[in-house]
Amino acid sequence: MALSPYQQLESEFNRLYSLRAAASLLRWDAAVMMPRGSVEQRGEQLAVLETETHAILTAPKIARLLDRAAANASGLNEWQVANLRCMRREHDHAIAIPSALIRRMAKATSTAESKWRDAKQQSNFALFAPHLDEVLKLTRDRSQILGQALQLDPYDALIDEFSPGLTVAEIDQVFATLSHRLPTLIQLAIDKQSSETVLPIATPVAASAQRTLSLELMKALGFPFDQGRLDESDHPFTGGISGDIRITTRFVVDDVLSGLMGVLHETGHAMYAHGLPADYRSQPVGNDAGMALHESQSLLIEMFIARSPAFVRYLQPLLTKILNVSGAEWAADNIYRLLTRVQRSAIRINADEVTYPIHIMLRYELERELLSGDVKVGDLPEVWNQRMQSRLNVTPANDAEGCLQDIHWAVGAFGYFPSYAMGAVIAGQLMEHLRNDCPTLDDDIAAGQFAGLIAWLRQHVHSAGNKTTATALIQAVTSRPLSAAAWLRYVESKYLQ
Amino acid sequence: MALSPYQQLESEFNRLYSLRAAASLLRWDAAVMMPRGSVEQRGEQLAVLETETHAILTAPKIARLLDRAAANASGLNEWQVANLRCMRREHDHAIAIPSALIRRMAKATSTAESKWRDAKQQSNFALFAPHLDEVLKLTRDRSQILGQALQLDPYDALIDEFSPGLTVAEIDQVFATLSHRLPTLIQLAIDKQSSETVLPIATPVAASAQRTLSLELMKALGFPFDQGRLDESDHPFTGGISGDIRITTRFVVDDVLSGLMGVLHETGHAMYAHGLPADYRSQPVGNDAGMALHESQSLLIEMFIARSPAFVRYLQPLLTKILNVSGAEWAADNIYRLLTRVQRSAIRINADEVTYPIHIMLRYELERELLSGDVKVGDLPEVWNQRMQSRLNVTPANDAEGCLQDIHWAVGAFGYFPSYAMGAVIAGQLMEHLRNDCPTLDDDIAAGQFAGLIAWLRQHVHSAGNKTTATALIQAVTSRPLSAAAWLRYVESKYLQ
Repeated sequence: MALSPYQQLESEFNRLYSLRAAASLLRWDAAVMMPRGSVEQRGEQLAVLETETHAILTAPKIARLLDRAAANASGLNEWQVANLRCMRREHDHAIAIPSALIRRMAKATSTAESKWRDAKQQSNFALFAPHLDEVLKLTRDRSQILGQALQLDPYDALIDEFSPGLTVAEIDQVFATLSHRLPTLIQLAIDKQSSETVLPIATPVAASAQRTLSLELMKALGFPFDQGRLDESDHPFTGGISGDIRITTRFVVDDVLSGLMGVLHETGHAMYAHGLPADYRSQPVGNDAGMALHESQSLLIEMFIARSPAFVRYLQPLLTKILNVSGAEWAADNIYRLLTRVQRSAIRINADEVTYPIHIMLRYELERELLSGDVKVGDLPEVWNQRMQSRLNVTPANDAEGCLQDIHWAVGAFGYFPSYAMGAVIAGQLMEHLRNDCPTLDDDIAAGQFAGLIAWLRQHVHSAGNKTTATALIQAVTSRPLSAAAWLRYVESKYLQ
Repeated sequence: MALSPYQQLESEFNRLYSLRAAASLLRWDAAVMMPRGSVEQRGEQLAVLETETHAILTAPKIARLLDRAAANASGLNEWQVANLRCMRREHDHAIAIPSALIRRMAKATSTAESKWRDAKQQSNFALFAPHLDEVLKLTRDRSQILGQALQLDPYDALIDEFSPGLTVAEIDQVFATLSHRLPTLIQLAIDKQSSETVLPIATPVAASAQRTLSLELMKALGFPFDQGRLDESDHPFTGGISGDIRITTRFVVDDVLSGLMGVLHETGHAMYAHGLPADYRSQPVGNDAGMALHESQSLLIEMFIARSPAFVRYLQPLLTKILNVSGAEWAADNIYRLLTRVQRSAIRINADEVTYPIHIMLRYELERELLSGDVKVGDLPEVWNQRMQSRLNVTPANDAEGCLQDIHWAVGAFGYFPSYAMGAVIAGQLMEHLRNDCPTLDDDIAAGQFAGLIAWLRQHVHSAGNKTTATALIQAVTSRPLSAAAWLRYVESKYLQ
């Protein structure tokens, strides 16, 4: 029997999935295993895979099949209908941008990334500025073209690439509340913590012991070791595919908590990937629902669960036993204080959860002003430092710790930053609801029992895959529109009471 | 300016190279890193990559470009002319076999491999027999079709897939000499060694120490660690590509010499891959010249260099120092005796270099008789055991140690076995010549100086890539046609004097 148009599409997207899975493994390998001398060849391999997937996705055949499948959708179930919508979205994104612009962008970002590394190392913004300018111009063109094709505002079109359906209107509403409330909250939290004694951890801990403890925590959280692994890389990340999840962390001998929190953060991402609908694993509807929701899952585990008093009750005996350490700095109270210290800092990736949204809002505003031309690239360091001072009362020591700290703009990832803070807000709203549904949650966490927590997330979040947008999912699960209210209640309760 | 037909071909083969490099990395990962639960998905990814490369290679466009490039070959240099020949060969091989047969073969070998594993584990040939029969039938069809397309005898066509240009006529000549001379040689070697005392190594050695020593040896041989790595897997192999060489070994705590010899064997393969012409890395002419020559390079390092008295003089102090061991069994004489023990054994992969060709000749004859129908699959265990008895005076304890010991036939690799013994013979002929050119070789080896050896191999063998056949290369380098004479002189001198 001949395949239906929908079945033919499924088959094309199966191919795409396998090629993307291969690319994902090659990127993981490049960060974890690959010898340094193979960088260029690996880049070539990834470019060829990218060209192959782009050719499959933009083939006229796909457009014809999408039209024919849409005209014959009566026999499809709701997952298949949603899948068709996701396929259409991928196709529309892929055909919107002319190949020439894709090539220019690939070349510009490749150069800009390399120049950014040099500039950051030397703290010399001038080395990076002309390349950022070029990426910015091309991104402006991209956003115009993409916006027209998708009938979205240009910046919304950029956000849509990372978090489908999320809009400036939703972000602005959330960020307005945060801008209004956070300065006071931060000051109060710092004032409150100023009377507490916190002992730094001075004992160096071997990476092998940190690894043993990490594996123990991952196991407790239900990480599927028959379908994934833990390795080390310069920056923690989650790679691979939902049936072969590769998480990494960085074990620092003098900072055991940062490596562990890295593992727990990535385990949050991993459990989301693991809980995606297995029946649609190779299809677009079986994907995650974008970066904001993905980040909500990692922050939920790291911030809401792992940096909680209940988790520290579970963690502290494991720490002392597996790492074979003792002393006042390893007491549960002290560990909890170390894990929840609020500090004004210039560096985003070191920021605590209370000051973190300030870093994001600053970038969100700046990238829109860069795109509109209201801020010129040449003025970026000065504007950055002024805003950092007025928003957070800190001045970066130099541009490496200022506007050169993040890779995102160099690689053209405009529209990505908001997903970090939106992820926290989503996690806050989910968590409030989860606590209602699981009244014994803190006791379970303290006992190292995470099955109920993960089952809840799987049922309400993970198993939905990419069937609806993150915003619609949150509305459906919590019966409320997305807002910063729950997250603010959480922060107040955790840091001010 | 428009690209010439030859340049367009180069560009198509660049794409092929990147996709094959990706596949090679996925296979390495599957053997070294991948969690067990991802086997099926990884198989899917490799199948998709295989389909993509096959589609590129068999596209009508390639046939047209090959014809046009051949008609305009006057401007090409000799490497480019050879490259065009290699491209034509790959295209001819790929288009010869109908897609339906490729799919049936992929399915049959996939099942047969899995059934072979079960059958071997249970030592139950009946479980495997029907699946071997199916693979055999399909291989018979393949060899007929391939032979017609390439104007070769069917079995020559199978050999040609692994070792381009090597023929039954050449193999038969070499094997006739070996069959005639080896039985006596083996007996004399065993008689001579029977008066020697050999102490087994009883000290267990941690894998980490074995790894440290292995890296030291690889470094001495010039392994390019910026373009490759050493890892562990169930069976040693060399994977990756010439700019990112992944070798593996298996460290057995109770058998330190086997892990080390595995590393040195694979380092021989690795140095060949590393020495291939870098300018043509992504082109067919920059490939190796087939499995027989590849195996000659690993055997030359393992058998001729590493299992020599000079090498043991270099190795023994490193062994005792890095492994921190002592005792009579670690004396240089004893190590050398352990590394050169001749024993009649039922298992090919455990065999010493003197008895090894017997194992190969038995398989070579049997696979031809299986293909011709002179031996029926059902009779294989009995015939195998009879021949083992008559050729080597051993009877396998069971079929797991008999006709089920190798994976090759299960995966359809008929025509592969002869390359092992032909590799040894090639190594013998090269080595005799190399010794003439490098009179201080043994002193260099004893001093841990391998630069001269590797430079000779690079200049005379590695840098030729796939420009000529292995047989033509040996003739050109040694000014003699390929024969078993040099290898036999080497064995007599090493084992009987």
